[in-house]
Amino acid sequence: MRAAIIHGPFDIRVADVPEPTLTRGDEAIVRVTHSCVCGSDLWSYRGVSDAISGSRIGHESIGIVERIGPEVRGVAVGDLVVLPFFASDGRCPECRAGFPTACRNGTFWGTNGYDGGQGEKVRVPFADVNCFVVPQDGLTDSMTTALLPLADVLCTGHHAAVCARVGQGSTVAVVGDGAVGLCAVAASRRLGAARIILVSTHEDRAALGRRFGATDVVATRGDAAAEEIAALTGDLGADSVLECVGTDDAFSLALRAVRRGGDIGVVGVPHGIADLRVGRLFRTGVGVKGGVAPAGIYIRELMPDVLAGTLDVSAIFDLTVSLDDLATGYRAMHERTAIKALVRT
Amino acid sequence: MRAAIIHGPFDIRVADVPEPTLTRGDEAIVRVTHSCVCGSDLWSYRGVSDAISGSRIGHESIGIVERIGPEVRGVAVGDLVVLPFFASDGRCPECRAGFPTACRNGTFWGTNGYDGGQGEKVRVPFADVNCFVVPQDGLTDSMTTALLPLADVLCTGHHAAVCARVGQGSTVAVVGDGAVGLCAVAASRRLGAARIILVSTHEDRAALGRRFGATDVVATRGDAAAEEIAALTGDLGADSVLECVGTDDAFSLALRAVRRGGDIGVVGVPHGIADLRVGRLFRTGVGVKGGVAPAGIYIRELMPDVLAGTLDVSAIFDLTVSLDDLATGYRAMHERTAIKALVRT
Repeated sequence: MRAAIIHGPFDIRVADVPEPTLTRGDEAIVRVTHSCVCGSDLWSYRGVSDAISGSRIGHESIGIVERIGPEVRGVAVGDLVVLPFFASDGRCPECRAGFPTACRNGTFWGTNGYDGGQGEKVRVPFADVNCFVVPQDGLTDSMTTALLPLADVLCTGHHAAVCARVGQGSTVAVVGDGAVGLCAVAASRRLGAARIILVSTHEDRAALGRRFGATDVVATRGDAAAEEIAALTGDLGADSVLECVGTDDAFSLALRAVRRGGDIGVVGVPHGIADLRVGRLFRTGVGVKGGVAPAGIYIRELMPDVLAGTLDVSAIFDLTVSLDDLATGYRAMHERTAIKALVRT
Repeated sequence: MRAAIIHGPFDIRVADVPEPTLTRGDEAIVRVTHSCVCGSDLWSYRGVSDAISGSRIGHESIGIVERIGPEVRGVAVGDLVVLPFFASDGRCPECRAGFPTACRNGTFWGTNGYDGGQGEKVRVPFADVNCFVVPQDGLTDSMTTALLPLADVLCTGHHAAVCARVGQGSTVAVVGDGAVGLCAVAASRRLGAARIILVSTHEDRAALGRRFGATDVVATRGDAAAEEIAALTGDLGADSVLECVGTDDAFSLALRAVRRGGDIGVVGVPHGIADLRVGRLFRTGVGVKGGVAPAGIYIRELMPDVLAGTLDVSAIFDLTVSLDDLATGYRAMHERTAIKALVRT
């Protein structure tokens, strides 16, 4: 079968790799129909993270179950399934506590001998836990595309909002206008936020943000952005700030944009963020929480709204490529000419 | 009138001071009937915080309204009122956002020309906002004593639990067996925690903790305590850890005792806590939030349960002194022979 392999900085190629086979009775083989490129894939693509040369890549996919092991109970051949970006076993203490992203037997895709999502097929460990079956009755292709963000970015944006305690009537500021930031806007609206301020210096992304629920756009950065958010909130700051970038600049802005007693949700993978003084958090009453979203929990919660059409972020896919043309998708996202590339396999 | 004055380390005296008078139309004069000594008063008493020599002290009190200014609407002479430890104006942006502890015109007691709570009377700013009227019909003296912790420690313990997202079925670990820690136990039980592990090396305090709802007691510190909490939680850690001490040792234990994806509520005033790496929070998915409790919000929420008798932490008062004998109360708390001294004026 064909699958993406990262060879080094800016060198991603699709090549022939062995077909996956079942290695345990609780696994499934899924034929990927839709996958996509994630902002975090770009860290490997740019050589910022150490991707091992020759490793598989991609962690967001939807597909059709092609084979199941004898122990699989809740998934059948022919099912359409969403696969979360992190696979968990469903039974370790962390999984039972509702935090599958910390699963002791969990794995990201493309590592530990597992296939990457950017390929024709993947072997899914603990299939009953990691295959989220989609009812196919009346399902259109555009609905399937709308389900794909559940694999990662929509759950990640939702996690930022949950960590930052977004609720009915909240004033939210979203730092970051990538796919995750835009999904954080949609998730905040879904949770009842009354006001959603998107920090975005890109007109097209800001326009999409407005479509997803942003009520205000701040088209500046740093001090100027902090001042604009203060002005927009009556010199108060936002109840919740969703930090969807991961740089020190973005985190510093979050600290300045949040009101006293408010919360910061951090889902941008931290790169060089300065240490936090606990005394500062205490004095301001601000909460900080984030990390890798427990997608396996959120998919169940969000899927009904996606299927009902009330939570549709499929417009983040502003470029579609074939698997063989995957490098075009990476390049476009790296150059920021595309928000997120959908890959049809 | 008589009131407490702190002169220097271990030198607290009760002396004659001028009677308070109304300086604005929205103030009230309250004759204090019950006050108490707070763990945070001990920081001044011990000379750890810079208390200005000759300054008034005390910030937890209940009393009878003796006079009101012409603009006061919701409070009448003769009302029994609980006074929160921080007075706010009720109308600045932070107050309107539900975080009165950050009030722009707010004040602690005993500073800025305001009386301390350890004295015969206090002048209350913004009386309509800061006097929480208690229905006196059928009120017994022991019920009044049970209301006094609303002025600070019960709200502070509740804040730890709210910040750490304690809810139905939570497993909670409470670090600190002072009055706040014990109140955090009671607040956690009220919020539905299924399991409450109290870290306490004092048998009498541990016994009180059990009475307030602790299901387990860990009578060790540091590494040993972390290991015991791990063992008690099936090698998982607690969903919520309530840090009610403020030292680096206590905070380090909190970081070790919390499960991945869990939350730490910090209400011990930080003294020398090491800076937090955001990358560590991200990797573990742990949230940190705390600070000075918005008592003005919580009093309204908690008072009905105190009046109903379902939230009674009055047993934290294991010593009663008269105002003139206040120094005995400080000494006993400093020497840890008393948990919390009630002061009858």
